[in-house]
Amino acid sequence: MTYCVGLLLDEGIVLLSDTRTNAGLDNIATYRKMFTFEEPGERVITILTAGSLSVTQTTLARLNDEIRDPNADETSSIMKAPTMLKVAEMIGAMLARVRAEVDEKLSMAQGASASLIVAGQRAGGEMRLFLIYPEGNFIEATEDTPFLQIGEHKYGKPILDRVVKRSTSLAEAQKAVLLSMDSTLRSNLSVGMPLDLAVIRKDDCRVSERRRIEAGDEQFRAMSEAWSRALRDGFSQIAL
Amino acid sequence: MTYCVGLLLDEGIVLLSDTRTNAGLDNIATYRKMFTFEEPGERVITILTAGSLSVTQTTLARLNDEIRDPNADETSSIMKAPTMLKVAEMIGAMLARVRAEVDEKLSMAQGASASLIVAGQRAGGEMRLFLIYPEGNFIEATEDTPFLQIGEHKYGKPILDRVVKRSTSLAEAQKAVLLSMDSTLRSNLSVGMPLDLAVIRKDDCRVSERRRIEAGDEQFRAMSEAWSRALRDGFSQIAL
Repeated sequence: MTYCVGLLLDEGIVLLSDTRTNAGLDNIATYRKMFTFEEPGERVITILTAGSLSVTQTTLARLNDEIRDPNADETSSIMKAPTMLKVAEMIGAMLARVRAEVDEKLSMAQGASASLIVAGQRAGGEMRLFLIYPEGNFIEATEDTPFLQIGEHKYGKPILDRVVKRSTSLAEAQKAVLLSMDSTLRSNLSVGMPLDLAVIRKDDCRVSERRRIEAGDEQFRAMSEAWSRALRDGFSQIAL
Repeated sequence: MTYCVGLLLDEGIVLLSDTRTNAGLDNIATYRKMFTFEEPGERVITILTAGSLSVTQTTLARLNDEIRDPNADETSSIMKAPTMLKVAEMIGAMLARVRAEVDEKLSMAQGASASLIVAGQRAGGEMRLFLIYPEGNFIEATEDTPFLQIGEHKYGKPILDRVVKRSTSLAEAQKAVLLSMDSTLRSNLSVGMPLDLAVIRKDDCRVSERRRIEAGDEQFRAMSEAWSRALRDGFSQIAL
C-alpha cells in the first residue's frame, strides 16, 4: 500500500509520500512515489503515485518521453502545456491509456489500477492541486477542501480534518502531514519509511524544500513521540 | 456504513455501535446494530452488526427462532451452547447460511455481505470477543489485540492503537471507544448518531451498563470538544 497527501495552502503546496511497494508480503521494496518536473522559476509539476507499479512507472516514463521528444508541443508535453488544468488533463489521459493497455494483458479480475496526485504552478498561473482517478478523470483541491489523499488515506484523515485550513502556515502544514503519515504508519504495516517531503512555496515555481526522511530519522521520531505523549495526556485529561 | 467496536479488557467488555443504515444517500434510516441475549448471572451474548441489513436482520431473526424453539438444544440455541466458542461457531454458520441464501437471489456482482462482533460470557467461562467474517469464519481478541472493529474502522483505529491495553479501566475504555467513534463520525457522514454503548463487567454475565447516546447528547458533545481542543493544543505545542 501507499499513503500520499498533498495540501494546497495560501502560502504554498506541501506534499508527502511513503516509499513502500509490495507484490505480496514477502516481496517488499522501496520505490520513490514522488516525481518532480521543473523549469525553476517557470514551472513546477510534482506527481505522487499510488497503485500498481506497472501502471505508474509506465505512465511516468511516457510523460518523460513526451517531454524529451524534440517535436514536443503544448498538446504533448506537460512542460509546455499552457495551464495546470491542461497538465492534469494530459496526465489523466496518459494514466487512462496505460491502464487500459495493462488491463488488456491481465484478466479482468485482477485489473491493475492507480491514482495520482498532481500539484504545481507555472509562472503567471495559480497553484493547483489535483487528484487523478484510475479512469483519468480528476478532482481539484478547493478553499473548503485544501487537502487530497491517495492510497491508505483513512487512518491519517482525522488529524488533517482537525488542523488543516487553507491559511495554515507551511511549517504547521509539514507537521500536519508528518503526523498524518505517522498515524498511518502505526496502523498499516504496508505503508513504510523512508518518506519524501516536498514544499513548493507560492510563486517560486520550483520545489522550494525537499527532504527524504529515513527510517531512523531522529527529528521524526521525536515528533512522533511528542505527539503520542500529547494524545495520551490529552486523553487522560478528558472527563467522561 | 457502520462503525462498531468491541474491547476485551481485564475488567470486562466494552461495546459501541452507531445506528445509521442507508440504501443510497437519500434513504437513510436508524436501525439498532447492537443485540443482546441474556440470562442474567448465567449468560450474556451481545452481537454487533455491519453490512447488508437483509443479511443481519435475517441472521438475528433465525438465531432468535432457534432460542425460542421448545425443542432447542445445545447444538441449536446459542443460549444453551456449552461454550462461547460454540456460540461463535453457531453464529458464524448461521451468517454464512443466510448470506448464501441472499446471494442466490441477487446477481453475483452485488452479493450481500455482513460481518459481526460477538461478545459475551457464560457463568464459569471466560469473557470472549469474536469478529465473524461474512464467510462465517472468525478471529478472536487476544492479550495483544484487545479490540476488534467492523464497518468503517480505519478513521477510529489510531486512537485505539495508542491508548487501549488489556489493563485499561472500563471508564477509560468507554472514553476511548467514544473518541474513536467521534473521529469516525467527523470523517464519514454515513456513520451516524445515535450510538449504543454497552459494558459487560467481568463475571456479571449480564449487560452491566447500557446507554443510548442521542444526537444532541450534552456529555458527548463536551467530550468531543475537549478532545478537539486537546488535539489542537497538543499539535501546536509540538516542535517540527
